[in-house]
Amino acid sequence: VINRAHFSEAITWRRNLHRLAQPSWLEFYATGLIASHLTAWGYEVKLGTEIFDPSKQLLPPSAERLAEEYNRALAAGIKEEFILPAKGGYTGVVGILRGTSPGPTVAYRFDIDSNEARESQEKSHRPAADGFASTVPRCAHLCGHDGHVAMGLLLARHFSENRAKIKGTVKFIFQPNEENLSGAAAMIPKGVLDGVDFLLGGHLGVAVPETGKIAIDVHSSLAVTRSEVTFRGKPSHSGTRPDLGKNALLGACAAITNLYAIARHGLGPSRINVGVIEGGSTWNVIPERVYFKMETRAIENSINDYMQAKAREVLSGAAKMYDLKLEVVPAASCPSGHNSPELVAIGLEVAKKLPWVKEVIPDIAWFGSEDFMLMAEVVQKQGGQVLFVLHGTPIGGGHHSETFDFDEEAIYNGADFYAAMYDTLTSR
Amino acid sequence: VINRAHFSEAITWRRNLHRLAQPSWLEFYATGLIASHLTAWGYEVKLGTEIFDPSKQLLPPSAERLAEEYNRALAAGIKEEFILPAKGGYTGVVGILRGTSPGPTVAYRFDIDSNEARESQEKSHRPAADGFASTVPRCAHLCGHDGHVAMGLLLARHFSENRAKIKGTVKFIFQPNEENLSGAAAMIPKGVLDGVDFLLGGHLGVAVPETGKIAIDVHSSLAVTRSEVTFRGKPSHSGTRPDLGKNALLGACAAITNLYAIARHGLGPSRINVGVIEGGSTWNVIPERVYFKMETRAIENSINDYMQAKAREVLSGAAKMYDLKLEVVPAASCPSGHNSPELVAIGLEVAKKLPWVKEVIPDIAWFGSEDFMLMAEVVQKQGGQVLFVLHGTPIGGGHHSETFDFDEEAIYNGADFYAAMYDTLTSR
Amino acid sequence: VINRAHFSEAITWRRNLHRLAQPSWLEFYATGLIASHLTAWGYEVKLGTEIFDPSKQLLPPSAERLAEEYNRALAAGIKEEFILPAKGGYTGVVGILRGTSPGPTVAYRFDIDSNEARESQEKSHRPAADGFASTVPRCAHLCGHDGHVAMGLLLARHFSENRAKIKGTVKFIFQPNEENLSGAAAMIPKGVLDGVDFLLGGHLGVAVPETGKIAIDVHSSLAVTRSEVTFRGKPSHSGTRPDLGKNALLGACAAITNLYAIARHGLGPSRINVGVIEGGSTWNVIPERVYFKMETRAIENSINDYMQAKAREVLSGAAKMYDLKLEVVPAASCPSGHNSPELVAIGLEVAKKLPWVKEVIPDIAWFGSEDFMLMAEVVQKQGGQVLFVLHGTPIGGGHHSETFDFDEEAIYNGADFYAAMYDTLTSR
Amino acid sequence: VINRAHFSEAITWRRNLHRLAQPSWLEFYATGLIASHLTAWGYEVKLGTEIFDPSKQLLPPSAERLAEEYNRALAAGIKEEFILPAKGGYTGVVGILRGTSPGPTVAYRFDIDSNEARESQEKSHRPAADGFASTVPRCAHLCGHDGHVAMGLLLARHFSENRAKIKGTVKFIFQPNEENLSGAAAMIPKGVLDGVDFLLGGHLGVAVPETGKIAIDVHSSLAVTRSEVTFRGKPSHSGTRPDLGKNALLGACAAITNLYAIARHGLGPSRINVGVIEGGSTWNVIPERVYFKMETRAIENSINDYMQAKAREVLSGAAKMYDLKLEVVPAASCPSGHNSPELVAIGLEVAKKLPWVKEVIPDIAWFGSEDFMLMAEVVQKQGGQVLFVLHGTPIGGGHHSETFDFDEEAIYNGADFYAAMYDTLTSR
Repeated sequence: VINRAHFSEAITWRRNLHRLAQPSWLEFYATGLIASHLTAWGYEVKLGTEIFDPSKQLLPPSAERLAEEYNRALAAGIKEEFILPAKGGYTGVVGILRGTSPGPTVAYRFDIDSNEARESQEKSHRPAADGFASTVPRCAHLCGHDGHVAMGLLLARHFSENRAKIKGTVKFIFQPNEENLSGAAAMIPKGVLDGVDFLLGGHLGVAVPETGKIAIDVHSSLAVTRSEVTFRGKPSHSGTRPDLGKNALLGACAAITNLYAIARHGLGPSRINVGVIEGGSTWNVIPERVYFKMETRAIENSINDYMQAKAREVLSGAAKMYDLKLEVVPAASCPSGHNSPELVAIGLEVAKKLPWVKEVIPDIAWFGSEDFMLMAEVVQKQGGQVLFVLHGTPIGGGHHSETFDFDEEAIYNGADFYAAMYDTLTSR
Repeated sequence: VINRAHFSEAITWRRNLHRLAQPSWLEFYATGLIASHLTAWGYEVKLGTEIFDPSKQLLPPSAERLAEEYNRALAAGIKEEFILPAKGGYTGVVGILRGTSPGPTVAYRFDIDSNEARESQEKSHRPAADGFASTVPRCAHLCGHDGHVAMGLLLARHFSENRAKIKGTVKFIFQPNEENLSGAAAMIPKGVLDGVDFLLGGHLGVAVPETGKIAIDVHSSLAVTRSEVTFRGKPSHSGTRPDLGKNALLGACAAITNLYAIARHGLGPSRINVGVIEGGSTWNVIPERVYFKMETRAIENSINDYMQAKAREVLSGAAKMYDLKLEVVPAASCPSGHNSPELVAIGLEVAKKLPWVKEVIPDIAWFGSEDFMLMAEVVQKQGGQVLFVLHGTPIGGGHHSETFDFDEEAIYNGADFYAAMYDTLTSR
Repeated sequence: VINRAHFSEAITWRRNLHRLAQPSWLEFYATGLIASHLTAWGYEVKLGTEIFDPSKQLLPPSAERLAEEYNRALAAGIKEEFILPAKGGYTGVVGILRGTSPGPTVAYRFDIDSNEARESQEKSHRPAADGFASTVPRCAHLCGHDGHVAMGLLLARHFSENRAKIKGTVKFIFQPNEENLSGAAAMIPKGVLDGVDFLLGGHLGVAVPETGKIAIDVHSSLAVTRSEVTFRGKPSHSGTRPDLGKNALLGACAAITNLYAIARHGLGPSRINVGVIEGGSTWNVIPERVYFKMETRAIENSINDYMQAKAREVLSGAAKMYDLKLEVVPAASCPSGHNSPELVAIGLEVAKKLPWVKEVIPDIAWFGSEDFMLMAEVVQKQGGQVLFVLHGTPIGGGHHSETFDFDEEAIYNGADFYAAMYDTLTSR
Repeated sequence: VINRAHFSEAITWRRNLHRLAQPSWLEFYATGLIASHLTAWGYEVKLGTEIFDPSKQLLPPSAERLAEEYNRALAAGIKEEFILPAKGGYTGVVGILRGTSPGPTVAYRFDIDSNEARESQEKSHRPAADGFASTVPRCAHLCGHDGHVAMGLLLARHFSENRAKIKGTVKFIFQPNEENLSGAAAMIPKGVLDGVDFLLGGHLGVAVPETGKIAIDVHSSLAVTRSEVTFRGKPSHSGTRPDLGKNALLGACAAITNLYAIARHGLGPSRINVGVIEGGSTWNVIPERVYFKMETRAIENSINDYMQAKAREVLSGAAKMYDLKLEVVPAASCPSGHNSPELVAIGLEVAKKLPWVKEVIPDIAWFGSEDFMLMAEVVQKQGGQVLFVLHGTPIGGGHHSETFDFDEEAIYNGADFYAAMYDTLTSR
């Protein structure tokens, strides 16, 4: 049982994080906050390239942005020793606590990045009214990852204060860049999941809009693959010699229309979207270059593979149509996944007994994507078990909306569930 | 000067042809009518594979259609000896008259095929009122080639009656299949243009809607290339497993839209059209096969080549998009072309002096296509000269319309112009 | 229990039907065969416009085809009195047997039409080897409806021979035109389902490829809507004045591509297909008219409605793009549907006890469409219950393939299951 | 004859302008330079809203940009009195010199704006080598308008020094914003062309790449219309509920592809281009808004009107397809036009007699667009005559290329031709 006395401090952590929201690969404040506390509480702390493979840093920020956010963390009081290893955007923290007796390795994964979006500054929006709305331009925690960090820290403190009960190893994985689905892929090659027997994680608020509820078997997550697509042709004056151009925009339009027209798969849901486009130079020049962001999703990895294979055909066909060069750069991807039935069964039992639980929702179809599933795949392949749950809380305005907010009780509840799971997993 | 006494017979020929309209590769009646008269008038007559290369017979008719029209010609009184060589659809006639003194080879080209279309049977339509409307289902002379044949025969008779004046050689080329632009290409490989010094031809009614007018320098004809395009994919039940299909219709739609979007050429007019489409099997099957007819045109051969090259890119890109097999079968083509300036100058002089001429139109931009231009190209390459003119006549309802008709005076006028040209060409 | 002695006659019925395959609205032979037997067995028989609303006869056959198939039935020995009421293509039969004691109205629905497709005449194909392959050009029973008719007749004979056990009313609905999903809609307005308490039906072979198996709860059928779409523009010579045309083909291509691109629905599977296209006149004319067949499907009626609404937007937008006239003619539609849980439970119990049953498959997701579901919707709305099952049999070559065949034991098994259901339904 | 002694000063003006390149609506330095000299030379000078209709200021610059360039001009020594009236971006100057005897009003039009593009700073580029390359970020005179201004000032000084010879009125129209084709439209409503009998203008370098040549009858300019197009739909999460979105990108793609597919006009060249696109927010959101720049061109105003009418149909059809809001904002337009035959004849005579002229090119087909033609249309409608010529000079690297340069002799030659024209026009 998590000590209620520490809860107010967890709220402070959360609000400070909220105020200083930093997005993917730029979570220096969160990294420093976590690392300094875990160190103080006796955890073995790993940072930077010990836990982060720079070759997997997709869509890296500019040097300018890195410097800006790094300095913002320092200015907020983070000691540089805790973020120096992360300086190139190699954010995230792993904390390890070894028990006094043998037992399994139980890992908890929490994501730490903010969104790149503006938060409401209206007084009707609680974070604004209570003075902890984001102060970082165009960045804000509108998905609750600030709450996830606070939940993780509250849990980590609990274990450090109950070290005698630890059997085996407890591992905390504070993962950067969940929003672009790329953080898990950057940590895995460095062995952060080696030896993990149980991996637990969750999300607050999604699909369970009431405090005191918890959903245990979150299934039907979607595999997702994102790419940056560029068509390159040849400019020409569109008034005098349109025939000398190679029109990258016509290629892109042919591609995009036909991407959406890829045949629906007969064996399960699939999705495709082109979310952003830009290209061309001016009115009277045949567009030489068009860039767009494309993603596919599907209920099964194999169906997502189908979407990707078809998308490649459409893209290369469109390039051929207009004699264009095609570049497809991977931007993110994560698999679909499923909880381990054994852990689902344990989770249902554990949740039922918690005093604050009003309702245990046995299962829920999610249709979202989470790069937790990439870690899940690795753990399950090595014989471990995984569980991803949803922590109930009402939310203001929907995930990613500018008025997103949540009930901070969810921080306590989540940490308490994870602590109880630990007790059961180590007492069998 | 053409003997006016023969004109009524020319009208009879024209009306019989009109009544017995036969389209491309099926002009058995015209072939027999021409061959029997030329033979009677002392011409050396060539038929069938002597003047027709079977390997160039694009879009050949079915055996059934060949038999039907062959028998129709026999039933109308044609002696089989004159059409037996043409039995496989190798229609057309070349007639040669050698003079008594040396001189140039002057060739006249007349096209002989009907359209594949229905003629009006209303009494307001003169051929119907006067009893010579087409009796052949779905076939009719709606472009005046029946008049061209009559004009050619009237001229041929004139030469045979004035044989003493012939210097060098007179050659008549009665060409099949102008409507599908493929007859000239079938005759040329057999040497019908060998040694031709002057080639003359024309069309009645087009752009000169008044009897007694004649246009001499007809320029700006368009090069044209026609193809039959087929996309082949894979069928699949569109309700249960749409993902297993390869959709030939989506490929065709991508191709067609983007064919029309090929960039306009900066150096001159170009055209593209997909005129006919068909494909698919039933409601709930992904279409396996789609077929369409495509043509490009342009003011210059090089611009038509540009259109063809771009069209090939679009077609193969669309095939790649949907993993389809692509087949492109040539259906017809002819170049753009231009009259020889020397013959234009002579033509202007000659026309001015003819008694029936009300107005000589020096030049006219045509924007039509004619496979005369393929013959013109060959003759000009071998050092000869060519002239293509337009014979004035009002026309009922436009070329190819079901009420097309013309003033039969144009038959006399055309023959008379050609006879006068001969006198000048051999008297220099 | 169905009397095994009658089985060989059922096989004869089936094979005669197979030999004389007639498709939608032309099932004169089946109508006559059924009507004559039901009459002989003491049923009240209803025919023609008593059970068929002519205003609902979508895609009616030509007068020529009607006469041809009507005469074919007469020539095969059908007495005209049994098909005269169906002469306009108002095919189908309803047979009613009233019991001697009160009880529910139990209705059985069997579909009777053949496919419009060619059957294999190879000796490796059993119907050909055994001399009962279709003798009707381009028509064949490749979906097993001939077996359905035989199953229905075998069952009807059983009831007539066990009339003393009938409580309430037994009703047989032999429905025409299931293949185009339009027969149920033509019968319902005439009250054929009035008072029906239980409606039973099924299909042989689909998804249960083994004799002795039966699937009880067939769910996830798809709603479907079919339309014939025509775009009409204006022709123009594509060489001289392409600007004067209104290109129906460009409109159709824009429509078709974007129809497939309609956003996948987030709440369940949807489908769209354009299965057939044709249009245009010739190479050098801007296509004036293009016609295509379009269908949408979805797991829920509401999702199918979504697809239809979006499709209408796409079609009318494409028409506006090219200033075309748009005509959308309904061709068929049927809802998705679900079995009544009470009947599923009874069906599972009944099936388990039948001696020939090797395995009862509790439920199966179908993803097919059936206009039984339109009848089901009506019966359920009036408070009745419905059950649609799948009768196991291996099939040769797949439904609708030219080598489709089935194990005739399925005829006996199906009738036997329905007879057993009756006993249970009337003994509760 | 222009006084050669003033030529070196003209070069200085040109180079200062080149160094301080300012683009459309921001030509404060040019405005101040011109206004101060004309004032000094005794011209009546009109500025700001006297000659500029603010309601016609299409695509106005931001307040920030206005301030930046205004201050840049002040910093370069321009006295504020000469640019204060232009402060809102109302740039341009009209200078009037009235003669001592009656005569016609002869107007000269020169354009003054730079391009928005980077100039080469390589030493191989003469302006860079000689120290007068542009110092304004992303702005440069790469079209020679700096030379046009110098030519105009040299001519204006000539008239002021030969005032006794002036008959009637000389008017100088220094027009802003030719690059976006919007300056003429902003000046005309203020009456700058009232009473103009002759309007002369020209361009240096285009199509006449040799000093000492001049082309007199520049014809076949293209009418052009530019618009900013925005489609607005509705965002939705593309993974969970794609069906709730309205996809502005699919609408834009349908529009763009079909814009390029608008049928070629049979009566003359037409063009269409979409030169720039941008839209959407992120990977997994259905794009809510897409913006693009579209232009049409044609040899005749009526054909440009055809392109615009068809484009509107395509745009509104695409909007309807995806239930989008469509906004089309005019961005620029100018007509095609033609010189007045009388002035062409005079121009040919005048040019022949100039000592520096090596070759007079009688006529040239241009296929470019110029908003001079809007002024030409107005002058011709009020009974005046116009002449637009091309001044020969080699150019480095092509118009709008980063190494554009020209032979400054063209400045003298152009002014000298205009001066000679004046003598002839006033001596008839």
